[in-house]
Amino acid sequence: MLVADLQTPALVIDATAFDHNISTMAVALPGSRLRPHVKAHKCTEIALRQAAAGHRSFCCATSREVIGMARAGLGDDLLLANETVDSERLRAMAACDARVTVAVDSDATVEAAATARIREVLIDVCVGLPRCGCEPGDAGRLAELARLRGLTVRGVMGYEGHVVGLEDGSARAEQTAACMALLMQAHALTGGDVVSAGGTGTYSCNTWANEIQAGSYVLMDNAYDKLGLPFRRALQAVSTVVSVNDRWAVADCGLKALGMDHGDPTIDGASVWFCSDEHVTFAAEPLPRVGDRVIVRPAHVDPTIAYHDVLRVATGPGIGAEVIDTWPVDLRGW
Amino acid sequence: MLVADLQTPALVIDATAFDHNISTMAVALPGSRLRPHVKAHKCTEIALRQAAAGHRSFCCATSREVIGMARAGLGDDLLLANETVDSERLRAMAACDARVTVAVDSDATVEAAATARIREVLIDVCVGLPRCGCEPGDAGRLAELARLRGLTVRGVMGYEGHVVGLEDGSARAEQTAACMALLMQAHALTGGDVVSAGGTGTYSCNTWANEIQAGSYVLMDNAYDKLGLPFRRALQAVSTVVSVNDRWAVADCGLKALGMDHGDPTIDGASVWFCSDEHVTFAAEPLPRVGDRVIVRPAHVDPTIAYHDVLRVATGPGIGAEVIDTWPVDLRGW
Repeated sequence: MLVADLQTPALVIDATAFDHNISTMAVALPGSRLRPHVKAHKCTEIALRQAAAGHRSFCCATSREVIGMARAGLGDDLLLANETVDSERLRAMAACDARVTVAVDSDATVEAAATARIREVLIDVCVGLPRCGCEPGDAGRLAELARLRGLTVRGVMGYEGHVVGLEDGSARAEQTAACMALLMQAHALTGGDVVSAGGTGTYSCNTWANEIQAGSYVLMDNAYDKLGLPFRRALQAVSTVVSVNDRWAVADCGLKALGMDHGDPTIDGASVWFCSDEHVTFAAEPLPRVGDRVIVRPAHVDPTIAYHDVLRVATGPGIGAEVIDTWPVDLRGW
Repeated sequence: MLVADLQTPALVIDATAFDHNISTMAVALPGSRLRPHVKAHKCTEIALRQAAAGHRSFCCATSREVIGMARAGLGDDLLLANETVDSERLRAMAACDARVTVAVDSDATVEAAATARIREVLIDVCVGLPRCGCEPGDAGRLAELARLRGLTVRGVMGYEGHVVGLEDGSARAEQTAACMALLMQAHALTGGDVVSAGGTGTYSCNTWANEIQAGSYVLMDNAYDKLGLPFRRALQAVSTVVSVNDRWAVADCGLKALGMDHGDPTIDGASVWFCSDEHVTFAAEPLPRVGDRVIVRPAHVDPTIAYHDVLRVATGPGIGAEVIDTWPVDLRGW
């Protein structure tokens, strides 16, 4: 079957770009230097291929991701890089046949982890992104509290999420340095072997962290594609033109098939006007015909994939490539 | 179980607001005057309650919605208010134990419907929204073509989607009149009993259409809540605070749990800063504590629900209400 024969909308991975991204990253950050973040793809078939490239430690954003990775035999070293006080989910993660580490940033999250018999934690440190993480100066106290409660403190994590998307590479590097100075201050207070940070935008300039939590590199999207990274856009949303007049065309890939927080998707050679629930309206010269297939490029990969049941895998880019595999998006939901 | 005991993030329907919305609309547009749009909720349990209120004809945006509604015994009169040339999906809809009508707006969509043995169509007319629909003046030719191909032309549809969200009620009414003038021109050319149009924002001012395709009224969202309609916000995203410092708090309801095309959600009494994949960061006075539950109000209901497996139903608003039912979001995907 060709990509052009798929029912639409469908997410299709260009295997040539995917393989390039996996191998490029495995050279840059081999083995445990990369802790791939599965939140970007929510797909154990992709994680299996990241593991085959040498990365056996993974990062997760939800307990469902942790538990699903353990069930898929990918539980060598799973980090929930997120806080939770859900005792049922913490107990379920602790019961996994896997090494599970969770992030903690408060007395309450330390207490919840210890009570649920989680064994290992990282102290999550705020390095500037207004989200989770303790003050750097509080990391030592939290580590001590965790150890008193019987938890092993493996070290620190601190995500410079406000920096990873900066288009100016030197600003990105400078601000990463400032963020990591905070993380290293905290690490000096906590001890432990792990300094976990970074993302696709800072994978090469973050030389402080000893493991990088990049996820988007494997499929990429329009936002990260602006940064001049050596990774290629590997995810395409294939759609069908369902309506055309003399001014615009409409294809069946709307905002229920695309993460919209980074704005509209793009279509090569066309001007995207807007998305509605099941449609993208665009202008192009020449306009396509009803029934033509169109490749839509998502602005943000993570929330795009979270809308889909499966990812198709094709031999290359475009609608003429052969579909060679179907991978379930099996880590969706919570 | 109380709402406060649910694992989060979870979508919870306030049954008092839901019942109010259903009954208010059933009084305003009784029976077939309303053709509820299931795209808003993708949930046959909700559609069953709309049917119990007297509405036995429904509107769908995807073939999966049509087929799922037929399987749920709600197939008295299903309209695919959307174009498709997917022969497999058209044949599957034609084979349903249901009355299925599809929208057509071109020779290609007429041909695809006829070939797949669809029996009835509406001529979809562009009334100003840059999306699907033929030119009003072309509607008669298309209707004739459809009849020549053996299709029954039931009439016209034309969605004033660019008008339904206008906050100025008189502008909304004036522009609806202009849109419907185009639709009535087209209807004079096509014949048929049906003039289908409208949405939640124009359900009362669109007096030209003989059936209104409103969907959002049943759950509402922040966008529609600004219009002064007699419907109440019935959908809440319940989340748990996972991290707090002295400036902001973070709860576990992020952009993979919320449609983001209408912007950030709101939290009563708080200032929402931004959403990331699994988090919403907000300020409030006083700040909550880790473990507290927070009600997040989605900006746009349709793409929010499309991220979730189930809807919980509670006796009332807020976290102290009792959870009395769980409804699958069974019409998701394509």
